[in-house]
Amino acid sequence: MFLALDVGGANIKASVFKADDAFALRSAKLHYPLWIRGVDGLPKAIEQAVALLGCDLKGASGVALTMTAELSDVFRDKKEGVDKVLRKAEEALGSFKVVTNDGSLLDPDEAVDRYMDVAAANWWCVGWLASLFERDCLVVDVGSTTTTITPVVEGKVAAKGLNDVEKMALGEIVYVGALRTPISSVASIVPVNGLWCRTSSEYFANVGDVNLVLGLLREEEYDVATPDGRGKSVEECHERLSRVVCGDRNMLRPLQTRLVARFVYEKVVEKVCEGVLQVLSRLASEGRYPEVGFAAGLGDFIALDAVERAGLRGVLLRDLLGRDNSIALTSASLALYLAYKTGVDVGRWISSLR
Amino acid sequence: MFLALDVGGANIKASVFKADDAFALRSAKLHYPLWIRGVDGLPKAIEQAVALLGCDLKGASGVALTMTAELSDVFRDKKEGVDKVLRKAEEALGSFKVVTNDGSLLDPDEAVDRYMDVAAANWWCVGWLASLFERDCLVVDVGSTTTTITPVVEGKVAAKGLNDVEKMALGEIVYVGALRTPISSVASIVPVNGLWCRTSSEYFANVGDVNLVLGLLREEEYDVATPDGRGKSVEECHERLSRVVCGDRNMLRPLQTRLVARFVYEKVVEKVCEGVLQVLSRLASEGRYPEVGFAAGLGDFIALDAVERAGLRGVLLRDLLGRDNSIALTSASLALYLAYKTGVDVGRWISSLR
Repeated sequence: MFLALDVGGANIKASVFKADDAFALRSAKLHYPLWIRGVDGLPKAIEQAVALLGCDLKGASGVALTMTAELSDVFRDKKEGVDKVLRKAEEALGSFKVVTNDGSLLDPDEAVDRYMDVAAANWWCVGWLASLFERDCLVVDVGSTTTTITPVVEGKVAAKGLNDVEKMALGEIVYVGALRTPISSVASIVPVNGLWCRTSSEYFANVGDVNLVLGLLREEEYDVATPDGRGKSVEECHERLSRVVCGDRNMLRPLQTRLVARFVYEKVVEKVCEGVLQVLSRLASEGRYPEVGFAAGLGDFIALDAVERAGLRGVLLRDLLGRDNSIALTSASLALYLAYKTGVDVGRWISSLR
Repeated sequence: MFLALDVGGANIKASVFKADDAFALRSAKLHYPLWIRGVDGLPKAIEQAVALLGCDLKGASGVALTMTAELSDVFRDKKEGVDKVLRKAEEALGSFKVVTNDGSLLDPDEAVDRYMDVAAANWWCVGWLASLFERDCLVVDVGSTTTTITPVVEGKVAAKGLNDVEKMALGEIVYVGALRTPISSVASIVPVNGLWCRTSSEYFANVGDVNLVLGLLREEEYDVATPDGRGKSVEECHERLSRVVCGDRNMLRPLQTRLVARFVYEKVVEKVCEGVLQVLSRLASEGRYPEVGFAAGLGDFIALDAVERAGLRGVLLRDLLGRDNSIALTSASLALYLAYKTGVDVGRWISSLR
């Protein structure tokens, strides 16, 4: 039994891979907004995330961890973030390995020293896992908050950016997701009453509201706080969207906010597609052209639209690994990688899924 | 036999509707760039367009005309444009009717007086024709140069803009098409070598090159002049696209210009979709929501993508009327309207097509 965790700024993802009599991969996600709940609650939250998997830490042959939480502004810098997250994780997990941006597995002390190699390195195993399915491909993982695009060339992870800043510049990270993205960050204008209406930069509504109004996500999948603290019914999402143009539920019909939602959804897909095309354009300059685009994450439907518009053959990873593992792909792939490094024939299991 | 013509600035479309023993609608398109070939060649060009239909003017029970050519800068203003086009058309056609932006049919002299009612009124019959298929719908006609979006509400043409300027503001005209649109008018940056590369504003390449490179149009459908005067092979389209980033065929691989083409195609669809959403947002403010979007024109595949992204059920008019009539929808619908006004049961024919 191999356990892996991805400690993000807003969510903790946990996965377990059982490789005893039969192979089985299971994942869970816990909403834990670090900047609200604080660093001190992290050990308990990690324990909770593990508990969601219904498995006992003591039975684990190995535990591994990755993170993106070090970006949170509760930390002064990444050095402090990596250090604090790892120390808190030790309280909950005891000993574990930390994955780097080239697939090395470090002990926590070493990881603290090499903090730039482990900060936001949660994409590496995702690329490695994809390489077991296709020697040349792209993985587009649209989470609640951000999108990560990881290319695989000739069976090797071929991302060029090795940290967040490089990736943000190269299109390997697009800061847009399926839930927490504020409307004004993707659309400065929206169509209302036959005109192009400006959007407020207040956090009145988010892409989660858009996806619920369009029927692309279910209420229980909207597992983060709403912008106004109210509920997650389609009616309440509609009300939040009406406020984005400084209106309210009495000024706009649901028919109207649905069109606003359509427009914003298109802008989200467009942003992800731009990242995909930028990454592909680098590969094309080297004469490479992956034909498959794996779509993963809570917003895998967005990823699928984006890769298909970019001309790739889209494959939903949820169809191969299940929805939960696709949502928690960063921890799921890390659990598999840990098993692989321990000698488990993960490739055989992957082959059985295709 | 009813004959109709749409005299545009770049193309002349001609259609004939035979309503004798059996109903039959046929259309043809002639590339005639008015600003190059001049006004004096217009009578001959109109005759040529009619000849393409293989029918004789003398046998016609009625002839009707519409135009957008008055926008051409060979004319000082629309008044002069309407006057000159109609006078030249008289040389070729003798007597005919001119359709207005509310579906009236005028004699040429009256049309000259009411030039603002007949200028660019070629969309009205398109809306009327669509209303015979669906009481509530939108028609999106993507031509070689421009896109016209015409809403139909409760069986009536429900466009709000009555002239080009109003339509450009309301989203009922989007100045983007399947062939002649310059790349820089839709994309100021494109993805090359992993970077966002600026585009030259020279007319080095157009959306026709994009559609050929992507296999969305065939060489013979690229029936306008190429930007560099060279041929229309995929290789030559690739070369033109490489020049848009100030490169050439030696600096960029076809793999790379194909990605540029993908990106530009997305921008084209996006612009059309924005027009559709703007028009829908006006209807939504009145509590109206058409569910069907008819896609027509040479770029009907662009129109289909746009209406589906806007949440409508897309229907290709080529599947109902044939590709040629869908391309020349403005003249085809005018021929049908003329027949209808003369007492022909056009509705019965339309019913047989559904």
